[in-house]
Amino acid sequence: MRPSRRASDAMRSVTLERGVSRHAEGSCLVKFGDTHVLCTASLEERVPPFLKNSGKGWVTAEYGMLPRATGERMRREASSGKQSGRTLEIQRLIGRSLRAVVDLQALGERQITVDCDVIQADGGTRTASITGGFVALHDCLAWMEARGMVKREAVIRDHVAAISCGISKGEAVIDLDYLEDSSAETDANFVMTGRGGIVEIQGTAEGAPFSEAEFGELMALAKAGIAGLVEMQKAAIAAPLP
Amino acid sequence: MRPSRRASDAMRSVTLERGVSRHAEGSCLVKFGDTHVLCTASLEERVPPFLKNSGKGWVTAEYGMLPRATGERMRREASSGKQSGRTLEIQRLIGRSLRAVVDLQALGERQITVDCDVIQADGGTRTASITGGFVALHDCLAWMEARGMVKREAVIRDHVAAISCGISKGEAVIDLDYLEDSSAETDANFVMTGRGGIVEIQGTAEGAPFSEAEFGELMALAKAGIAGLVEMQKAAIAAPLP
Amino acid sequence: MRPSRRASDAMRSVTLERGVSRHAEGSCLVKFGDTHVLCTASLEERVPPFLKNSGKGWVTAEYGMLPRATGERMRREASSGKQSGRTLEIQRLIGRSLRAVVDLQALGERQITVDCDVIQADGGTRTASITGGFVALHDCLAWMEARGMVKREAVIRDHVAAISCGISKGEAVIDLDYLEDSSAETDANFVMTGRGGIVEIQGTAEGAPFSEAEFGELMALAKAGIAGLVEMQKAAIAAPLP
Amino acid sequence: MRPSRRASDAMRSVTLERGVSRHAEGSCLVKFGDTHVLCTASLEERVPPFLKNSGKGWVTAEYGMLPRATGERMRREASSGKQSGRTLEIQRLIGRSLRAVVDLQALGERQITVDCDVIQADGGTRTASITGGFVALHDCLAWMEARGMVKREAVIRDHVAAISCGISKGEAVIDLDYLEDSSAETDANFVMTGRGGIVEIQGTAEGAPFSEAEFGELMALAKAGIAGLVEMQKAAIAAPLP
Amino acid sequence: MRPSRRASDAMRSVTLERGVSRHAEGSCLVKFGDTHVLCTASLEERVPPFLKNSGKGWVTAEYGMLPRATGERMRREASSGKQSGRTLEIQRLIGRSLRAVVDLQALGERQITVDCDVIQADGGTRTASITGGFVALHDCLAWMEARGMVKREAVIRDHVAAISCGISKGEAVIDLDYLEDSSAETDANFVMTGRGGIVEIQGTAEGAPFSEAEFGELMALAKAGIAGLVEMQKAAIAAPLP
Amino acid sequence: MRPSRRASDAMRSVTLERGVSRHAEGSCLVKFGDTHVLCTASLEERVPPFLKNSGKGWVTAEYGMLPRATGERMRREASSGKQSGRTLEIQRLIGRSLRAVVDLQALGERQITVDCDVIQADGGTRTASITGGFVALHDCLAWMEARGMVKREAVIRDHVAAISCGISKGEAVIDLDYLEDSSAETDANFVMTGRGGIVEIQGTAEGAPFSEAEFGELMALAKAGIAGLVEMQKAAIAAPLP
Repeated sequence: MRPSRRASDAMRSVTLERGVSRHAEGSCLVKFGDTHVLCTASLEERVPPFLKNSGKGWVTAEYGMLPRATGERMRREASSGKQSGRTLEIQRLIGRSLRAVVDLQALGERQITVDCDVIQADGGTRTASITGGFVALHDCLAWMEARGMVKREAVIRDHVAAISCGISKGEAVIDLDYLEDSSAETDANFVMTGRGGIVEIQGTAEGAPFSEAEFGELMALAKAGIAGLVEMQKAAIAAPLP
Repeated sequence: MRPSRRASDAMRSVTLERGVSRHAEGSCLVKFGDTHVLCTASLEERVPPFLKNSGKGWVTAEYGMLPRATGERMRREASSGKQSGRTLEIQRLIGRSLRAVVDLQALGERQITVDCDVIQADGGTRTASITGGFVALHDCLAWMEARGMVKREAVIRDHVAAISCGISKGEAVIDLDYLEDSSAETDANFVMTGRGGIVEIQGTAEGAPFSEAEFGELMALAKAGIAGLVEMQKAAIAAPLP
Repeated sequence: MRPSRRASDAMRSVTLERGVSRHAEGSCLVKFGDTHVLCTASLEERVPPFLKNSGKGWVTAEYGMLPRATGERMRREASSGKQSGRTLEIQRLIGRSLRAVVDLQALGERQITVDCDVIQADGGTRTASITGGFVALHDCLAWMEARGMVKREAVIRDHVAAISCGISKGEAVIDLDYLEDSSAETDANFVMTGRGGIVEIQGTAEGAPFSEAEFGELMALAKAGIAGLVEMQKAAIAAPLP
Repeated sequence: MRPSRRASDAMRSVTLERGVSRHAEGSCLVKFGDTHVLCTASLEERVPPFLKNSGKGWVTAEYGMLPRATGERMRREASSGKQSGRTLEIQRLIGRSLRAVVDLQALGERQITVDCDVIQADGGTRTASITGGFVALHDCLAWMEARGMVKREAVIRDHVAAISCGISKGEAVIDLDYLEDSSAETDANFVMTGRGGIVEIQGTAEGAPFSEAEFGELMALAKAGIAGLVEMQKAAIAAPLP
Repeated sequence: MRPSRRASDAMRSVTLERGVSRHAEGSCLVKFGDTHVLCTASLEERVPPFLKNSGKGWVTAEYGMLPRATGERMRREASSGKQSGRTLEIQRLIGRSLRAVVDLQALGERQITVDCDVIQADGGTRTASITGGFVALHDCLAWMEARGMVKREAVIRDHVAAISCGISKGEAVIDLDYLEDSSAETDANFVMTGRGGIVEIQGTAEGAPFSEAEFGELMALAKAGIAGLVEMQKAAIAAPLP
Repeated sequence: MRPSRRASDAMRSVTLERGVSRHAEGSCLVKFGDTHVLCTASLEERVPPFLKNSGKGWVTAEYGMLPRATGERMRREASSGKQSGRTLEIQRLIGRSLRAVVDLQALGERQITVDCDVIQADGGTRTASITGGFVALHDCLAWMEARGMVKREAVIRDHVAAISCGISKGEAVIDLDYLEDSSAETDANFVMTGRGGIVEIQGTAEGAPFSEAEFGELMALAKAGIAGLVEMQKAAIAAPLP
């Protein structure tokens, strides 16, 4: 029995709340159970130096955690003067995942920054960030489309969503919360598109190594879970913005 | 007429939502109109070096803004590698203000850190932080009292709340939003206790200098406004925690 | 009786020595008793990015303390790798205070940086910095006027000076030295112009909150004190440069 | 045909040169073709704070590149003042991979730091670092065993090695050099033990998403390649130290 | 003819003013012409980690320049966030030079920090710092002797002073000011003891290389110059403290 | 008898291996006994800001040590976030030394960066870096000459090499290894050109001060030693590149 009493293939309750920021061009408060991430997409009329005069745009992401998003207060990264390796690793993953479904040429020479700030953490913050970040990015492009700047469908070629899976007490399970994650033997994150293509796979043995068969079980769970998340994204963006 | 069509002595709609963080010992989401600040109070069983073995505790505050809390996205301080002078100035003010009503001896050798993170900004973030931070601090002490660690009333000697006032188009007004604040001739912040004592005054001429009479008008507005905020704090903490 | 045996409205001996730097366009060594601050005004033919091509200039200030300006040696900020919140707060205050009497349009697209370096500290360094910084700034503009670059009187519209006041042992007193400042119940800094307009007010309760009446007493002391300082500034700049 | 004219399952020439550092307790210069990494293992009689008095030791890794290891000179990280996200990500991966085969209890309360410094880069530096880092770590433990500090076999439970695979021009290939890596559609890194257990999997779509079947091809290549690398490690450590 | 019209072996006017700091245990304002350096010696009852429980003390130095000590304003190192290589090099030189005449065992487990802050620069700041720093250090030890902490003569074994020499327009000259220094072909700094022993030599060809004979001429100038400086130090410390 | 059993004027075995980097325009692995430094020269088509549009180029150097180049592992400077004073001092010395034999006008508006990375340290790393760095610089210019960019002989006007000397157990000796260096009474570094001109002299008393006569002995040793090093450089660059 999982600590949360969920079935091995049952995700936590997921919600995607759009339009939560007064200022951002697109925004989404994503909740996977007690994990809450505020995603905002900000449009800027500039690109990184390596894209100057290329006609191509850029999508990037930044990730942060409020100091008391966690069970023990963590030191504020702004105060310690640098972002941890974990933070940098996660924001690079989010950025790569979102760019995987974006046509940077169609975006034009502009940058969209997706900020994913963890308001409350209970495991799975990086996969929640990708799933919610996509919605914020979509709404930013809808905002741009409404102003005649781009064709949204030309820029966003597919959905992208992500989920964590793991092996806990010998069993493959989906969407681990913090408690389960802390004791899991294997931890894996999957990022896939709406059409089922794989964008990113990360699997780590926390204790004993895992086998190819076990990894196959995790991937099967992830495929089903991500398909469900993509449906939720579609339902969310089909509704009018609040 | 003020841009918000409010009367000169009318504050924005203020709400104080307690118990918003699953992890923090005390928390409060404070809203002054479109300014939203998440305040969490975190208890730690340690004190700064200068208080080691003194028997006294410490209350401190940290302040931050999500990058897109503002109209234009601001650079993430964790990424730029240092906190701005403005951030440091504000968090020092919040800490001093809260300590003004705390008996550090009665707290015992522990530290409470009040994190004030601006989710959305529309002027008055520092005064909202103080007002909401007090509620988070209070709830942290209630949490401690429930565990027999302190007597809450011995530690918190009074309420403390804060409001901004300013002179805009020649008129003294209270609780300026961003639009009004940007063009105000004089900007002042007041921090006062429940019994009406003054804890902190900061007044700045943004354009022409101001007179003692004008400053008196601002203080009169502030006294009435803060009295109202203290009433709201009392009502909020009288209710059971959600 | 004050520790310094001064009357409650008696300032320390104040001197303003001009022309103390061989290199700076304007300079002033200001002494308030044992508090000594070297102020230099440096002209540069550039402006901050936000003023590029605006036709307007900028006046800014930087503040520092020699490591052994104080009773205990303090760590050198250049060595610790960052300026403290206190330093940033003070230099922002000095800059705002000086700009309050400057016509940036009349200055033209140039920057004047007023460096205030505390050679020896005994309380009141920020107010001494403003008072002496004004003289350095004035002499920089006189230097520019002599070269036909500006009309000094068009750029500097008024005098500006500052003083600290406080409530010590229940009595309102002016110009606190370090000993008195350390034990004062309330500490306040006032910045005013030659015509008596208020530019900046900062009042802080170090112990018990203070009342509006007490604050009024501090302001009365400050008005008289600053009027005296402005007279000293006038006398100083009326003399020929050494 | 691959740019290097290798068959799709052919690795570059790999060498593992032991005992290359006069000072380090263990060292290995690993070459995968033109990728050369110097790995040193350094023993220290201390552990990170979170392991103090736990009786357990720690194995960690650091990664760096000489500025001109690459085709274009890169800025020295010591000079820019921080390690890039890529560097932090890689050194975390190396550390996790090595710890996967180490019994930290049997190591005792000591730390071994494996430094992997890229002398020359031509793709696959992180997988070369893991493969060579294992040999350096092994020799450090042999050094300790010779001094009666540990039983090497009790500490190192298995071999660990790593290889990169990718999809290039539609074909699954192993051990990509820089040229091939730059244009590959999918890039994956595999870390496995001597007994074939999986320690870490990282797969990234650089262009179009990849399918589960494609990923299976990459894993098959990796399993064979890593088995070969483990044989080379065994041969290398079977020989007497030079 | 030198720009300053001095003879090749003529130093600038040198003064050593003691007791200039109210707080420091020892202090000296040293002037070599228009080069003015404030030296303070601060006693602290602690030592660097490598001397803990060794019974030995430490003497160290820090060096800084006020931003407008120079002809063009230089960026404040506290603001740029790091000390330049030049600053670090100079303060290491000053520390080594002072330690050369100190018996660290006789000092006991304490640290003296000599801060050398350049108030105004006109060439030769490092050699002025050593010459004046010695006097501040001496007075700190006299202060300690007066309190029975050390025997000054047991701690300070000799005098130490320093001078710069150079080859300018083909001629060996002593004590170059900024103008002469900027165009000199060779620049050298000498640190010697009261008994004529050499503590440190640094010679640099700024343009063409120099010969051993030329270097001999510089050393001869330096020996005479430093002998004169030591006499001035003796005279200065023979007088009662002001 | 020296610890290494060498005669007082005997250097360690020195080798200069060219063409060791696949990527760099020039490279040299220099060994002085167990001191091994990898020197690479990198050409960039840009110059520092102060040379923009001057028609002149720049030669600069950077220095680093692998963390376990030394007997005890040293903290990685990239991880500590800053280069030590020792590192900055050494790289400034290397850069000055190389520039002493370069005609920056003839180089044209380009920069060559010579990176000197210590793979293994056993004393004398800075002098080995200069000696080997010259060969890397030479080969970079040969590379440029082969592409018609410069005339090598117009840019490099002479050889430059360096050696350390010291007084150990009362005797003047050349080319100290770490063991000898640690206990030497006096430590000196000499940089000279192929024609015997002196570029840089640095002498430091580690214990008792030294005399002019002793310094003369060190210089005599250095002159002979550097003449030998220049011969080795000539032999090395006369051979065809491997």
